[in-house]
Amino acid sequence: MEEGFNTVLVVGVGLIGGSLALALKEKKITKTVIGYSRNIERLKKAVTKGIIDDFTDALDKTSQADLVVLATPVSVFEALISQMRDYIKKDTIIIDVGSVKGSIVEKIERLLPSEVYFVGTHPIAGSEKTGFEYARADLFINSKVIITPTDKTAMSALEKVTQMWKHIGADVEFMSPEQHDRVYALVSHLPHLLSYCLVETVAQFDKFFINYAGSGFRDITRVAKSSPELWSDIFITNRENILNFLEMFTNKLKQMRDLILKENITQLKALLESARKLRESID
Amino acid sequence: MEEGFNTVLVVGVGLIGGSLALALKEKKITKTVIGYSRNIERLKKAVTKGIIDDFTDALDKTSQADLVVLATPVSVFEALISQMRDYIKKDTIIIDVGSVKGSIVEKIERLLPSEVYFVGTHPIAGSEKTGFEYARADLFINSKVIITPTDKTAMSALEKVTQMWKHIGADVEFMSPEQHDRVYALVSHLPHLLSYCLVETVAQFDKFFINYAGSGFRDITRVAKSSPELWSDIFITNRENILNFLEMFTNKLKQMRDLILKENITQLKALLESARKLRESID
Repeated sequence: MEEGFNTVLVVGVGLIGGSLALALKEKKITKTVIGYSRNIERLKKAVTKGIIDDFTDALDKTSQADLVVLATPVSVFEALISQMRDYIKKDTIIIDVGSVKGSIVEKIERLLPSEVYFVGTHPIAGSEKTGFEYARADLFINSKVIITPTDKTAMSALEKVTQMWKHIGADVEFMSPEQHDRVYALVSHLPHLLSYCLVETVAQFDKFFINYAGSGFRDITRVAKSSPELWSDIFITNRENILNFLEMFTNKLKQMRDLILKENITQLKALLESARKLRESID
Repeated sequence: MEEGFNTVLVVGVGLIGGSLALALKEKKITKTVIGYSRNIERLKKAVTKGIIDDFTDALDKTSQADLVVLATPVSVFEALISQMRDYIKKDTIIIDVGSVKGSIVEKIERLLPSEVYFVGTHPIAGSEKTGFEYARADLFINSKVIITPTDKTAMSALEKVTQMWKHIGADVEFMSPEQHDRVYALVSHLPHLLSYCLVETVAQFDKFFINYAGSGFRDITRVAKSSPELWSDIFITNRENILNFLEMFTNKLKQMRDLILKENITQLKALLESARKLRESID
């Protein structure tokens, strides 16, 4: 990368924040990474593990950064920006790595002082695992990163952030914040909701049944091990899109239920075949 | 195993039938495996691959077998038994490896001549992969096999079949056919239905969105690549249980939807936490 950063402040040092810290240092895109959290013990451990170089639980350190990465649950972004805004120096770039964009990008852009540049980014590289213990410098290699520019996004910042993600191996795509939230409501948020709901259905009927589960159930419910804090947040923040697709899903489920009830094996098989073909297209 | 079989007839040489053929030969539980199918070309290929020793497309060969394994879609079992019953010799054991038991076990037991012994078995070892090309002799090692005896099951046959599964590495459990169908409706059949339904929801809204899917979506929809023939059959055969649990699932989904709508993050998070704990209990 032609011109990197001097100091990156990673706000929230978990799987994604920690992996980004490692990747930026490995590729020499930054000299120093400071980790922010309210849990100093965790931050000390992250320093010991070589994930961050320094740490703070005070956001006045924002003044030292030329790149700030928001890597906490999305509902905290607004409060963080409010606390940071007096300390952010001119020309600082702020990115987030959250799973919801629309309303949040709008709020952040409204809160930020001029000459501070925000670019929304969403690496499609998370997993049900949480914590910097799982952080890896190569997490983003060949993984998609969606960047969500708006009319207010500065071209220079957009270019620098795009280059940064590309340099650590990501496959960058651009989308409006609104389109991003529609797409990920359908291919990520709704699926997570269904996965949690399936486990809760087992819990309600008979917890013990789960011991008979095979690999299919395990695959389908793997994401139900994801962070409840992160995901309750996502479900509520992107609720409009999620509930729309949930209705669509419920209608499709009714259609399948009717085919089963009527023992219409021909149409049922055709529907399963159609699903199979589409799913195989992404293998 | 103290006393094995001379000749095993595997009816339907796919992933499970093929793997069982390999495992029985590897452990010297049988001398010969004959494969039955109506597709002679596939059977020839299975012989070339060393999965079966001989093949037939005529069920009169049943007379040569002392163990018959039904490994086709469950809806075919009844017709197969009707075609076989005049050829089955005395003391032959018949097992199935199907995913639904209740009504099917009952029908088979009613159709069989006396002194022919049926034992229902269900290895929890399938996957979305189909065909003997994926067959492996070690498929059943450490995998659960549910055996579903009834009042009519002969003790000698039950013991021999149990020993057989244990010898090829399976972890055997016993359950009534009715309980089996309840358990697997909840932890396997309903989850498969949801997985297919999710892919079809994407298909209906915008097929292209699937290209943005990350690992969560891929995990949840992996089983939507399963055989439509096999699964439409299971959905219809075990419909009563599946539709009951589907209703329970739909109610749980409504509950989650209401929490999201009301932005009740505390209760929503508690629900996700409960799901996470239960799911983690089987890791």
